[in-house]
Amino acid sequence: MKFRIGTALLAVAMLLGCNQQDGQQAGKAQAEIKPIEWKLATSWPKNFPGLGMAPERFATMVEEMSAGRLKIKVYGAGELMPAFEVFDAVSQGTVQMGHSAAYYWKGKAPAAQFFTSIPFGLNAQEMNGWFTYGGGQQLWEEVYAPFGILPLPGGNTGVQMGGWFNREINSMEDLKGLKMRLPGLGGEVLKRVGGVPVTLPGRELYTALQTGAIDATEWVGPFNDLAFGLHKAARYYYYPGWHEPGSSLEFLINQQAFAALPNDLQAIVKGAAKAINQDMLDEYTVRHVAALDSLINEHGVQLRQFPEDVMAQLRKVSAEVIAEQSAQDPMMEKVYKAYKEYEQGVRRYHAISEDAYTRLRQ
Amino acid sequence: MKFRIGTALLAVAMLLGCNQQDGQQAGKAQAEIKPIEWKLATSWPKNFPGLGMAPERFATMVEEMSAGRLKIKVYGAGELMPAFEVFDAVSQGTVQMGHSAAYYWKGKAPAAQFFTSIPFGLNAQEMNGWFTYGGGQQLWEEVYAPFGILPLPGGNTGVQMGGWFNREINSMEDLKGLKMRLPGLGGEVLKRVGGVPVTLPGRELYTALQTGAIDATEWVGPFNDLAFGLHKAARYYYYPGWHEPGSSLEFLINQQAFAALPNDLQAIVKGAAKAINQDMLDEYTVRHVAALDSLINEHGVQLRQFPEDVMAQLRKVSAEVIAEQSAQDPMMEKVYKAYKEYEQGVRRYHAISEDAYTRLRQ
Repeated sequence: MKFRIGTALLAVAMLLGCNQQDGQQAGKAQAEIKPIEWKLATSWPKNFPGLGMAPERFATMVEEMSAGRLKIKVYGAGELMPAFEVFDAVSQGTVQMGHSAAYYWKGKAPAAQFFTSIPFGLNAQEMNGWFTYGGGQQLWEEVYAPFGILPLPGGNTGVQMGGWFNREINSMEDLKGLKMRLPGLGGEVLKRVGGVPVTLPGRELYTALQTGAIDATEWVGPFNDLAFGLHKAARYYYYPGWHEPGSSLEFLINQQAFAALPNDLQAIVKGAAKAINQDMLDEYTVRHVAALDSLINEHGVQLRQFPEDVMAQLRKVSAEVIAEQSAQDPMMEKVYKAYKEYEQGVRRYHAISEDAYTRLRQ
Repeated sequence: MKFRIGTALLAVAMLLGCNQQDGQQAGKAQAEIKPIEWKLATSWPKNFPGLGMAPERFATMVEEMSAGRLKIKVYGAGELMPAFEVFDAVSQGTVQMGHSAAYYWKGKAPAAQFFTSIPFGLNAQEMNGWFTYGGGQQLWEEVYAPFGILPLPGGNTGVQMGGWFNREINSMEDLKGLKMRLPGLGGEVLKRVGGVPVTLPGRELYTALQTGAIDATEWVGPFNDLAFGLHKAARYYYYPGWHEPGSSLEFLINQQAFAALPNDLQAIVKGAAKAINQDMLDEYTVRHVAALDSLINEHGVQLRQFPEDVMAQLRKVSAEVIAEQSAQDPMMEKVYKAYKEYEQGVRRYHAISEDAYTRLRQ
């Protein structure tokens, strides 16, 4: 290491200067420190509206808050690995972080499904309450601990749309043989009533629907569905999204990488994740509006509501499927019981608050 | 400035050491810098559940994220100034921050009322969307700019309860002469239908109700109402909170103090505020449940729903009052138009998403 007088004098000046400086200059001092560099792999196309922008905004926020000490580079699905290999990559430490949806990992941990959304379950506000003050976060950490992953809520889409269909759904008969992209528990419910559920990454949906490889697909809602052009491949747009009434996304963090961060950067990662969790729902709440207007008024999409008796049947089957799956896996049973107890409580209150107001303003 | 050889050598060693260190050590380095110290005054009793805990958690989060470089001390109402002088104190720079509710400042800026909640207006999810991606934040900044204050959303209570009454409300007649604590536009509506609205800080409600100085009061919802013991002073607990369907709280920041922060601390303040904005709603969503159960099952509170025709009448009067007030103030008129346009859009979408799902699960 070369020693130069000029450097030494500069160092002296800097250090003496420190005695007088306050928090003002610290940002500058930090920028001279070699940054920690993390990779974040997602299950979405790079910069995809909503889902894909949340991790980008997260990375920007972390870099700003840390004055460049923690730089996170975001990769779209397929850039480093396929969409559904994000969990393994974070678990193995190939990347330090991921952004995805917990129900994609039902093959590894069936209980994970509760942390995205379950058919006829909690809405966005209720999911967020469950995570933060209702015990959901602790259970989620328990489910992911064997994989060396710390999960954090990573946004919410709100109630999703029921999906795009090439034929009308007038009765349960119309679901028989229906080949539909529908992941998680919703897919299991469809299977139980005679349909054929398929799991496909978002970017493959348009082609699959357009070529007739599938008869129907759900994705998210107007903002994302318009971006994929799904209206060009199917005629009917159904609501409401019974299968995902408040879909929560997730940040996945490699536990070792997180533990190696100093306390302030840990707080920044957690705080930014929480801010982004809210930010995604904010964006969907606003952007779905113009997208739905465009789909109906400019693209001639035909909006359809699922028949009440179909909803009632699917609700009954959903409860059966969730109870049966939970009985087969001790961890899923544990999460199921906790979720049900929270759900019953929050609905008791929401019946006279949020829901009563919703009815009032119709 | 005294120059010492020992210090100089240490400085050289530190600077050279810098070339090898990474983000890991930065937290330690920061702790040696003299912290910036801010005061935050609130309109709530110190550590009051929900409302009062949000600024405390904000301060903790900022301190952790900044490795102690920005320390914020939180003061309850009355500690530095009365509850309703927080706005002036932030404006004048007596304190750098405040935590309060925008509708308290209607005397200074009538448009401020839209940034808390208006009768029969947006719910929590819709308010948050409006702030972040719907143009609400920009309008709010415009309203507070003349006072040198930067506002940020600072939590949401969700739909509030209709309030505590010492007599039943069976018709519009029962509102005549009713002396009720009801701030903001809700109070104006009550006045229009013959009632007597009063604005009082939260800590004075129990005594005012108990002594008969007021006949009724709204506050927040079960979690906070139980904490104040309002059930001991009134018999009937009404729902839903038509007057505040998604009450947003606020962080007030003195603009000069904010501008003097380095970029990273500015990002930390904004990011932490956003995280806490979500956190408060999470907490209310969960804690209202047990509090409501306790009020009903342990304290024998009688739950009552406002009659439909009373709600329809108040809704009509609310629309009139809001339009009339807006016509008298150019800035309020501007915010009113923007709010209405956003509201019509988001309700168009929520009718087939959030609201359709709410109806489905009844």
